Amino acid sequence: MKAYALLGGPTNLWPKNIKQTLKNVQDDLIVGVDRGALFLEEMGILPDLAMGDFDSLQKNDLAWIENSVPDVRYSNPVKDWTDSELMLRTVFQDYHIDHLTIFGATGGRLDHFLINLFMLLNPVVRPYAEKVSLIDMQNVVCFFNAGKHVISKREDYPYIGLASLSTIQDFSIQGARYELKNYSSNYPRVFSSNEFLPGSKAFEISFKDGLVAAIYSKDIDRFHNL
Amino acid sequence: MKAYALLGGPTNLWPKNIKQTLKNVQDDLIVGVDRGALFLEEMGILPDLAMGDFDSLQKNDLAWIENSVPDVRYSNPVKDWTDSELMLRTVFQDYHIDHLTIFGATGGRLDHFLINLFMLLNPVVRPYAEKVSLIDMQNVVCFFNAGKHVISKREDYPYIGLASLSTIQDFSIQGARYELKNYSSNYPRVFSSNEFLPGSKAFEISFKDGLVAAIYSKDIDRFHNL
Repeated sequence: MKAYALLGGPTNLWPKNIKQTLKNVQDDLIVGVDRGALFLEEMGILPDLAMGDFDSLQKNDLAWIENSVPDVRYSNPVKDWTDSELMLRTVFQDYHIDHLTIFGATGGRLDHFLINLFMLLNPVVRPYAEKVSLIDMQNVVCFFNAGKHVISKREDYPYIGLASLSTIQDFSIQGARYELKNYSSNYPRVFSSNEFLPGSKAFEISFKDGLVAAIYSKDIDRFHNL
Repeated sequence: MKAYALLGGPTNLWPKNIKQTLKNVQDDLIVGVDRGALFLEEMGILPDLAMGDFDSLQKNDLAWIENSVPDVRYSNPVKDWTDSELMLRTVFQDYHIDHLTIFGATGGRLDHFLINLFMLLNPVVRPYAEKVSLIDMQNVVCFFNAGKHVISKREDYPYIGLASLSTIQDFSIQGARYELKNYSSNYPRVFSSNEFLPGSKAFEISFKDGLVAAIYSKDIDRFHNL
């Protein structure tokens, strides 16, 4: 079973096909996190699971969630786990899903976005990192734990950046336009704007410790609206 | 002397008063980084310094920059330093500025945003971290090196999140709604949605190692446009 989670980030950054994607879901799990549960309702989609502290919601919205959603889980604002981390733990450990696609994770409040980016660093959920994709209208982010990995080209995404999100050892990039050899660091760093070689559809990365985000991206013309 | 830098991020995330702010600059330094230099031209503002590899610009745009901007510095795409890091080094080490406000650093391609967030982790520019602010329409981000610091309330920004951007030791938050005591970690983590106590205009943070971003944020209604 796969899962699709909608978080509370700005709706104008959603990928264009999000509504159709979620409407087409049959046997897979749909999760609404905090305000994301409400966004699902507004699209006419009933989530299977809703999570959050729901403190920003109006009473009637919360009532709709509590009356309609089969599994509602409340988080506490005074907590060690963020809503996003709790969501990851729940879908992988309770629902045993095989893959999670996350929408609504980017933009808006930067502390919210960083929570959604850094959540996979939590050692309890880090083992699931390679089963998670984070998607908005301009970016697709995949995560990799230590080891050797193939980074495959995605049509329509001309740019590929690799972000080391914590300490890393012996990070190498082989077979791409810009190679890297045995880079080690105790702080995050981004290797941006790499490219697939002409005719090539993949390159290889390897590292001994750390968490790497592969960020596929494309340009969006409409942002230039002076 | 202060400096204002405009980076190439999406223009629809700029703070509302950016044009007026930059038009009012008299003796301070205005910097355009890559496409940001062009955005300045389009606003009728001549930067004092332009930096970047300029590889995404049309020939006539680059010609305008080369003919009008007093100090143009070219970066190389095959490089150890990102454009943002080079910009920091230049304004602080060559122009000896006292404070840098950065616009156009957020949104769009996530690898670009993360470069702009992580740039201050570079040990060469980290000493300048506390002199840098990163501002978009919804967020103000300030940076702190190890030590004891007062986090002051900013009017119009109801939320305050604290993000540890790398390894950190003995991170404590005192006098805020949610306190923290001697948190240590070897990976980044965000302590989001904290609050100033009623009647209080400040709280204190301290830590022994690491770099902390204080993220002030507010809600923007227009993002909810289903």
